[in-house]
Amino acid sequence: MDNFNVAISTSIAMPFAIGYYIGFQEWNRIFPVIIASALSFIIGYKLIPVIKESTLAAGLGGRDLNKVSNKKIPESLGIVPATLYLVTMILAQVLFARDHDAQFQYNSATLSVCFMILLGFCDDVLNLRWRYKLLLPTIASLPLLVAYSGTTAIVVPRMLRDLLGYSIELGCLYSLYMILLAVFCTNAINIYAGINGLEAGQSLVIGCAALTHNFIEITLHINDQIYTQHLLSASLLIPFIFNTLALLKYNKYPSKVFVGDTFCYFAGMTLAMAGILGHYSKTLLLFFIPQILNFIFSIPQLIGIVPCPRHRLPKYDPRTDTLECVPTHFTLINFVLWVTGPQHEKNLSTALICFQIMCCALGFYIRYEISQIFYY
Amino acid sequence: MDNFNVAISTSIAMPFAIGYYIGFQEWNRIFPVIIASALSFIIGYKLIPVIKESTLAAGLGGRDLNKVSNKKIPESLGIVPATLYLVTMILAQVLFARDHDAQFQYNSATLSVCFMILLGFCDDVLNLRWRYKLLLPTIASLPLLVAYSGTTAIVVPRMLRDLLGYSIELGCLYSLYMILLAVFCTNAINIYAGINGLEAGQSLVIGCAALTHNFIEITLHINDQIYTQHLLSASLLIPFIFNTLALLKYNKYPSKVFVGDTFCYFAGMTLAMAGILGHYSKTLLLFFIPQILNFIFSIPQLIGIVPCPRHRLPKYDPRTDTLECVPTHFTLINFVLWVTGPQHEKNLSTALICFQIMCCALGFYIRYEISQIFYY
Repeated sequence: MDNFNVAISTSIAMPFAIGYYIGFQEWNRIFPVIIASALSFIIGYKLIPVIKESTLAAGLGGRDLNKVSNKKIPESLGIVPATLYLVTMILAQVLFARDHDAQFQYNSATLSVCFMILLGFCDDVLNLRWRYKLLLPTIASLPLLVAYSGTTAIVVPRMLRDLLGYSIELGCLYSLYMILLAVFCTNAINIYAGINGLEAGQSLVIGCAALTHNFIEITLHINDQIYTQHLLSASLLIPFIFNTLALLKYNKYPSKVFVGDTFCYFAGMTLAMAGILGHYSKTLLLFFIPQILNFIFSIPQLIGIVPCPRHRLPKYDPRTDTLECVPTHFTLINFVLWVTGPQHEKNLSTALICFQIMCCALGFYIRYEISQIFYY
Repeated sequence: MDNFNVAISTSIAMPFAIGYYIGFQEWNRIFPVIIASALSFIIGYKLIPVIKESTLAAGLGGRDLNKVSNKKIPESLGIVPATLYLVTMILAQVLFARDHDAQFQYNSATLSVCFMILLGFCDDVLNLRWRYKLLLPTIASLPLLVAYSGTTAIVVPRMLRDLLGYSIELGCLYSLYMILLAVFCTNAINIYAGINGLEAGQSLVIGCAALTHNFIEITLHINDQIYTQHLLSASLLIPFIFNTLALLKYNKYPSKVFVGDTFCYFAGMTLAMAGILGHYSKTLLLFFIPQILNFIFSIPQLIGIVPCPRHRLPKYDPRTDTLECVPTHFTLINFVLWVTGPQHEKNLSTALICFQIMCCALGFYIRYEISQIFYY
């Protein structure tokens, strides 16, 4: 078992291990979702090799720029776990059949994710322009905005309460915040990419971290509302983790399939929906630290101060079979290569996944230790 | 203005004219949907020429087999009205914000249609096999089945009531009936195709007939429940009619774009959802008489008693620019050509649309006159 697999397995084991350790009691509530998700994992694992022939035949494929081989790798295979995710979500909907409000929110989240997958797949097939990449998640997040019935107030940090009061009612600005979160999550994953297994790997680690957070909050059971919100979020994340795992099996180094924009949009939207419905969007952003760093690095090229090439991959050296830093590509990947020197792609992807795990751990530390200073 | 345009314009004017004539009072309830739908019509009309370049570039196109020209016609343009339909539906959702149950059903219908569009577009791009054509609408109709909260009993015709009682509770069988309706509607439109403007034209006429039925039932206002159901159905159908019209502008003879499986699935699912949520599925099937006839003609080839070719188009005669009957293709189109002799494609499509309108009129006659014998 190589290091990459160890990192991924650890991530998946973490919510369950920590849940068990802290005395999580609600296994019976999530058990049907786990069974359904495990089934969809098996179907996805069997289906990807079949559908990859169809995507290749449809012209959805490209060569792996970090390899010697000129062989075409099938693209957009994210459509398989994404579709199976929707099927799982639809079937698991009966879990909330008794709680009308939760079911409605669950349903709206599924609609948002479904619409995002449709738009992502359109983007893969039709190669839409850049401006649509900001428009599409905005449109797709609308179902949830309309359905959102929670608070639109934010709690003010302790030191500012004399000035601003205990909380600020944001109203419509809160809807704007939710849209921006959806737009950020989808695009942040999309631009932190280019190494085998990175898109699916990072999404899986973030999903596991968010699920761990759900299990902790469900166990703490501060009040019934928070309990329900985190249960809802967990039922969005469990099928996501299993289906992403099926894709990662084929996408990790050496990639047999590419995930496509379909997957990046799907993953970003699902995580954003879980954060919004679970009411832990600030904590979610803590798990996005690598993506935020990559976004900050990318700003000069995103807004056009520095010219932005079509791909911002590292340079592949076929002699040594390693990737080298390209100083004009402002990404976290190139920054890591600049710090460490040339790396084999497999090691680099493992390192980036480990960095993602460390950032999530840091996120938990900030959420449960440092935030006390500001909020309690 | 040619005959085809007259037929389509008449269909669209019909619900509004009849609504006005019978004293329909709820214009203010549907006015926002009409405005939103009219806007989406304009956007769709502008967007189709842009997106058709992208679909062609993506390899989604084929030559028109009923023409002399070898020029490639862009395929799958149904994705444009379908996506705009979803946007309209999501934005119009606020109309039902006060009625939780109606909003939930509306939302579930949107999810079903969205999932169907996703699967339809996948089918267009990936050329899925025949067996998926039955599986996909089954999966896509699940959100509505889970959300469906109405009656699962059917009223027994008068002459059988001594034997069976006033109504029969179908329970789970009713869910099966709803799935079969969705599967039938999507595939029935898909196989009654092959002539310029027929897929979009027939769907538009059926949509207008169903909307007319909604307006009649809303005006009759037998009870609040039936009133709400038909209002819900109308708000599903109005954006459908407008968006389909935008597509039909380019799809009618001579076709500048083809609609693709995306559109057929989208149209079938939307009509099925409207029928289920409006609780008038039997009346809806009356509007599907041409599709039912075409399905009955097709049975020998569908179940494989008679060999079934890939396309079952009429034969094009370039000398006379007409279409001729092919006796081995068991479709309604070929039957019409066999009765009338060779026809120009434009006349044939107009004739088939007029036949669709006549069947809808017959449907109304059966629903409001003949059914009295059985049910009152």
